Amino acid sequence: MQTEQNKNRATLLISCPEKPGIISTVSNFLLEHQANIVQFDQHTTDPKAGMVFMRIAFDLNDFDASHDKLCEDLQTLANEYKMKWQLNNKRDRKRMAIFVTKQDSCLMELIWRVKSGEIDADIPMVISNHNELREVVEREGIPYYHIPVSVETKDEAETRTLELLEGKVDFIVLARYMQILSPEFISKFPNRIINIHHSFLPAFVGANPYVRAFNRGVKLIGATAHYVTNDLDEGPIIEQDVIRVTHRYTAEDLKVAGRHVEKHVLAHAVAWHVENKVIVHGNKTIIFT
Amino acid sequence: MQTEQNKNRATLLISCPEKPGIISTVSNFLLEHQANIVQFDQHTTDPKAGMVFMRIAFDLNDFDASHDKLCEDLQTLANEYKMKWQLNNKRDRKRMAIFVTKQDSCLMELIWRVKSGEIDADIPMVISNHNELREVVEREGIPYYHIPVSVETKDEAETRTLELLEGKVDFIVLARYMQILSPEFISKFPNRIINIHHSFLPAFVGANPYVRAFNRGVKLIGATAHYVTNDLDEGPIIEQDVIRVTHRYTAEDLKVAGRHVEKHVLAHAVAWHVENKVIVHGNKTIIFT
Amino acid sequence: MQTEQNKNRATLLISCPEKPGIISTVSNFLLEHQANIVQFDQHTTDPKAGMVFMRIAFDLNDFDASHDKLCEDLQTLANEYKMKWQLNNKRDRKRMAIFVTKQDSCLMELIWRVKSGEIDADIPMVISNHNELREVVEREGIPYYHIPVSVETKDEAETRTLELLEGKVDFIVLARYMQILSPEFISKFPNRIINIHHSFLPAFVGANPYVRAFNRGVKLIGATAHYVTNDLDEGPIIEQDVIRVTHRYTAEDLKVAGRHVEKHVLAHAVAWHVENKVIVHGNKTIIFT
Amino acid sequence: MQTEQNKNRATLLISCPEKPGIISTVSNFLLEHQANIVQFDQHTTDPKAGMVFMRIAFDLNDFDASHDKLCEDLQTLANEYKMKWQLNNKRDRKRMAIFVTKQDSCLMELIWRVKSGEIDADIPMVISNHNELREVVEREGIPYYHIPVSVETKDEAETRTLELLEGKVDFIVLARYMQILSPEFISKFPNRIINIHHSFLPAFVGANPYVRAFNRGVKLIGATAHYVTNDLDEGPIIEQDVIRVTHRYTAEDLKVAGRHVEKHVLAHAVAWHVENKVIVHGNKTIIFT
Repeated sequence: MQTEQNKNRATLLISCPEKPGIISTVSNFLLEHQANIVQFDQHTTDPKAGMVFMRIAFDLNDFDASHDKLCEDLQTLANEYKMKWQLNNKRDRKRMAIFVTKQDSCLMELIWRVKSGEIDADIPMVISNHNELREVVEREGIPYYHIPVSVETKDEAETRTLELLEGKVDFIVLARYMQILSPEFISKFPNRIINIHHSFLPAFVGANPYVRAFNRGVKLIGATAHYVTNDLDEGPIIEQDVIRVTHRYTAEDLKVAGRHVEKHVLAHAVAWHVENKVIVHGNKTIIFT
Repeated sequence: MQTEQNKNRATLLISCPEKPGIISTVSNFLLEHQANIVQFDQHTTDPKAGMVFMRIAFDLNDFDASHDKLCEDLQTLANEYKMKWQLNNKRDRKRMAIFVTKQDSCLMELIWRVKSGEIDADIPMVISNHNELREVVEREGIPYYHIPVSVETKDEAETRTLELLEGKVDFIVLARYMQILSPEFISKFPNRIINIHHSFLPAFVGANPYVRAFNRGVKLIGATAHYVTNDLDEGPIIEQDVIRVTHRYTAEDLKVAGRHVEKHVLAHAVAWHVENKVIVHGNKTIIFT
Repeated sequence: MQTEQNKNRATLLISCPEKPGIISTVSNFLLEHQANIVQFDQHTTDPKAGMVFMRIAFDLNDFDASHDKLCEDLQTLANEYKMKWQLNNKRDRKRMAIFVTKQDSCLMELIWRVKSGEIDADIPMVISNHNELREVVEREGIPYYHIPVSVETKDEAETRTLELLEGKVDFIVLARYMQILSPEFISKFPNRIINIHHSFLPAFVGANPYVRAFNRGVKLIGATAHYVTNDLDEGPIIEQDVIRVTHRYTAEDLKVAGRHVEKHVLAHAVAWHVENKVIVHGNKTIIFT
Repeated sequence: MQTEQNKNRATLLISCPEKPGIISTVSNFLLEHQANIVQFDQHTTDPKAGMVFMRIAFDLNDFDASHDKLCEDLQTLANEYKMKWQLNNKRDRKRMAIFVTKQDSCLMELIWRVKSGEIDADIPMVISNHNELREVVEREGIPYYHIPVSVETKDEAETRTLELLEGKVDFIVLARYMQILSPEFISKFPNRIINIHHSFLPAFVGANPYVRAFNRGVKLIGATAHYVTNDLDEGPIIEQDVIRVTHRYTAEDLKVAGRHVEKHVLAHAVAWHVENKVIVHGNKTIIFT
């Protein structure tokens, strides 16, 4: 959530096999490129034979002038150390497309946090398989595209969606979007599609989860935000939270409680993604908050 | 948790089909029996055709003198209104047997809260299929019975356990007891066996849940306390809670976090059971906290 | 939060000195008036010589036809038992004026929850001593009145405000309204003005609390919603909550965290007030959630 | 909470003025000394002209053989960069004296967590101005010293206490110790005395805070753990938390709730201190959890 306004500030995310001296290597590399480190986060799965993950925020005197050389040298370093890396500049605001169906709470929370500056991103478009939310979106000055989806038109709808997104969007947020994306679609945005779904203890897999949670008398209603993979709702978890409920809650009340916890969990996940605080490794995330 | 010291204080729990005037009927009944109502809690599933649940704490001038007549008249009332009822007197401290295996955290939390007066109950015995926890139990002056359980001796072990419990125990707490009770055993303590188990979002059913939760990178570790039914871990939920974890937690750290949330959830569930704050209806609970 | 849609549903709040049989008396009274009790909540400060508080939700066959007689008889009962009482009908949606200055988060949260039906009230007007929030209010179809306040014009501004409110408003919410109301103004809305303010552990009384909280390195940021009395920020507390922060939060980040906890605490307090779940007794509240 | 068992693992805490390349300098220094960095945490108050704080966990091939040379070279580095530093080895288990009066909950929580391995420290002694807790301490095999304190004997009591502590203790935990320590005493353990006290929103300074919190109807009961300075209860905050309460809690119930939140907050603070996760800067803490 931190406000880092410097135009010459960048964030570097690195994943690589553990190797003695790796922190020296990376910090020396940045020093040689005149980078002034502002924040350094690191995590090791196993100091002997594991993976090391780093997030380094740093300032440069002139990011634009340095950018190409920095990337080139980074790639050389990466080849040597088998690194995966990602460099983001503060000015390159991430652009997110929000996909919705009819429910507005997650959508509105995201729009609100973008307006208030808490999520430092742009929303170039909202795409929906319905038309209900057009007005609340358009009055914010955000283009709204209605792309209906049926079994017959699913391929065509995805094609049209990809055309709309082409070159305009860095990642996608499924803000209660009630359609399943195809593996082909997902493969175009690896670890760049964020979904939110309800979570219960225990899980109620299948239809009408809130009714079944009500019938079981659960005391907590939860939500999980995760990156979308081909395993439905089984991708790397970014954030989770719960809200307390009682026997006085109707099944409808549970849904309302669910909407609240969902929108906050999603907003946190999106903010961390935007701030380059998330590294995905296998099916889990490292979150440098 | 409230400290209600009056020896002539009693608690009446009632479940019955909704009927106009039912609250008048019950409160008049108590007034006619010289009961002074201290706390009145009520819940209706549907005011037209549902069930109504009541918990009434009241004082009598002389509970002993009134008890038999009160019960007799209550049964007459119950017949008329198809009530299920339960009357508890403050002095009749509930007696709980605690079943354990090797892990001590839930056990110690319960013993501690009994000693501090937060759980107003007696612990006449601890029963374990192992011997590891004998010392910490016996030094508190609580009898410890070691009843090994194997596939061959399971029936015999349950028979011996029931003999030990006979007439000495009002309810049972499975404080990380790693054996499954038979339906016959459970049927002797309907809604009077409380179990605690870990809960995750999503659920990790089967072996090594903490390792799998670790591999998935969950952000919350939870616990559920419930009454034991023949559906393993599927009985009416009494209490649930979660604790926040991060990518820095090892699988072992997740277990430690789990132990903390488990012991607190279990302690709350046991306290509410002891204070007659729980009504079971179908597979869910009404909790009058 | 429960959805109680019946047009003939009413809520009765009662405060009176404890007296044996008081619950029978009240429930019989309602039965005689053909009221079907839906929910009955009660609290006693001391069963011997304390105060008893009740909240009773009930249905009538025809609320309009019964209303006047019910009120008349209630007053007779109240005289006998020294009761304070308040009767609300589900259809008489409460009307709230929202007072704001420049910050929009609490305001928007309230508007949003009214639109979603979570707060079952009307917002006939927003009043502000500034003009910044006019657009976001007016586009929701809510009248916005700009009444500047200075030391010289304070009396006049309050007079004008009272004229605007006259007959149109049931209660007032100070949603980060940065002016102190006069005792005369407050006396016109006893226990009907709700304020929200930041709360810290420990308290930082005086100017720049967030900067001082930052300098002290607090780990929690809190908020308190309360009814406004002449003791600034010292009126009966309705709701409180906190949010966890770390050393990485700047003073500005703490403010953002504060805005989030403030808006949720305020929204809960307003919802409970609207649902007649709050009884004020002396300088504290009884909340029947 | 992480279990780091390596005997050759050490933790280095550093505070120094921000300077370009400082991370390179420190990581190169460690690399030259054959240290393998396991975890690297860093925080900057201001990348241009602030302070930088680092916590580095690292492994050496042979800590004992390297220790003296490492310290010597560290001091040379520290002189150049105006560093404050602290080096801790995993095997040098910290030794804590626990000071108590009559209340046992914080004491027992600490003993329990030491026994379970969650707090990786020794408890060479418990010191009390009363005798009530002797038995529960001594049966754990921990020496218990009764040092009564009165206005007249305070100096003498502190002198005797210091004699007992001399050479046997690394830090002190005031686990509900109801005596104020003199500035002379405190000066011997700078940032090495941890205290726990209740915290309310708003604060209730002075006598009987729980009664006053009850009279005000607070909805949250909190606790703050902090390092002891000469400003009573105003030292650097290590951890804080709250617990939710309702109008049903008596003043006594609030105290019980307070004891629970106090013991958990204190246990977290002590664990972080033991794991060298806390850096004090001015009157605030940086906590590398």
